[in-house]
Amino acid sequence: MKLIVGSPGTWSGLALRVSQCVFALASICAMASGFGFTNYSAFFYMIVALMVQLMWSLALACVDIFSVRNTKDLHDWMLVTLIVVGDWITAVLVFTGASASASVTILFTRDTHICRVYTRLACGQFALSIVLAFIVWLLGAASCFSGFWLLVSFL
Amino acid sequence: MKLIVGSPGTWSGLALRVSQCVFALASICAMASGFGFTNYSAFFYMIVALMVQLMWSLALACVDIFSVRNTKDLHDWMLVTLIVVGDWITAVLVFTGASASASVTILFTRDTHICRVYTRLACGQFALSIVLAFIVWLLGAASCFSGFWLLVSFL
Repeated sequence: MKLIVGSPGTWSGLALRVSQCVFALASICAMASGFGFTNYSAFFYMIVALMVQLMWSLALACVDIFSVRNTKDLHDWMLVTLIVVGDWITAVLVFTGASASASVTILFTRDTHICRVYTRLACGQFALSIVLAFIVWLLGAASCFSGFWLLVSFL
Repeated sequence: MKLIVGSPGTWSGLALRVSQCVFALASICAMASGFGFTNYSAFFYMIVALMVQLMWSLALACVDIFSVRNTKDLHDWMLVTLIVVGDWITAVLVFTGASASASVTILFTRDTHICRVYTRLACGQFALSIVLAFIVWLLGAASCFSGFWLLVSFL
């Protein structure tokens, strides 16, 4: 089994998956606890994308735990391709959601100053949630990249 | 010289670059002719990203024309890597801009119905511009993918 940092079935891979779950959950909680997020499609879409990422990372964390406990080699060509494609799709979803939500938050805070006028709107929490979502995306991209590197090493 | 559709220095590559320029220009014109686009950061950011894409595609179209006319082989490892990285960066910029602008347009048309109330705002043109920007992104992604495929074939 090749030792590539962050690849499936390794301790570093498991740590990446767990971090993704933690940050995705924190981002969802920060957004969901903010008043008025359900009124805006971009925020709602980001929550859905983060939930997809959370479920995907949770499932792969379980696979990693199984692999690490039983010292089972997960570096099969087909399995790694499947994981890389899944990682890529979830990373794109989260990135799109975070970009969309960031633009709406910038519209509220800078372009129209709605946040200053309508203080009940939880703009601070929206911003925090978006920053956490971008961290989730970075961690997802790291997983995707290490899996991809493993695929290239099969060639 | 390997014949990969859309790779640098081929007729199909040149066609892809010219299409990127045409669609990017059309998108910029659609957005810039709409009333009120300068007030919103997301739209402004998309215009900047499209301009970067336009300049990049124009420069590479010139390189492709030179290569096709003089039947010069551009399939050098370093050059293709540079082009793929540049394509990837511009594609990500355009994708982020298009996602951000799409979310703001959805906010205007569906979430708050500002377009219906404030009819002077050119929501139709914004939507057209965003669709064109997504086409630019797809064409950019196609260029990036074919260049990447060429890189893999060097391995």
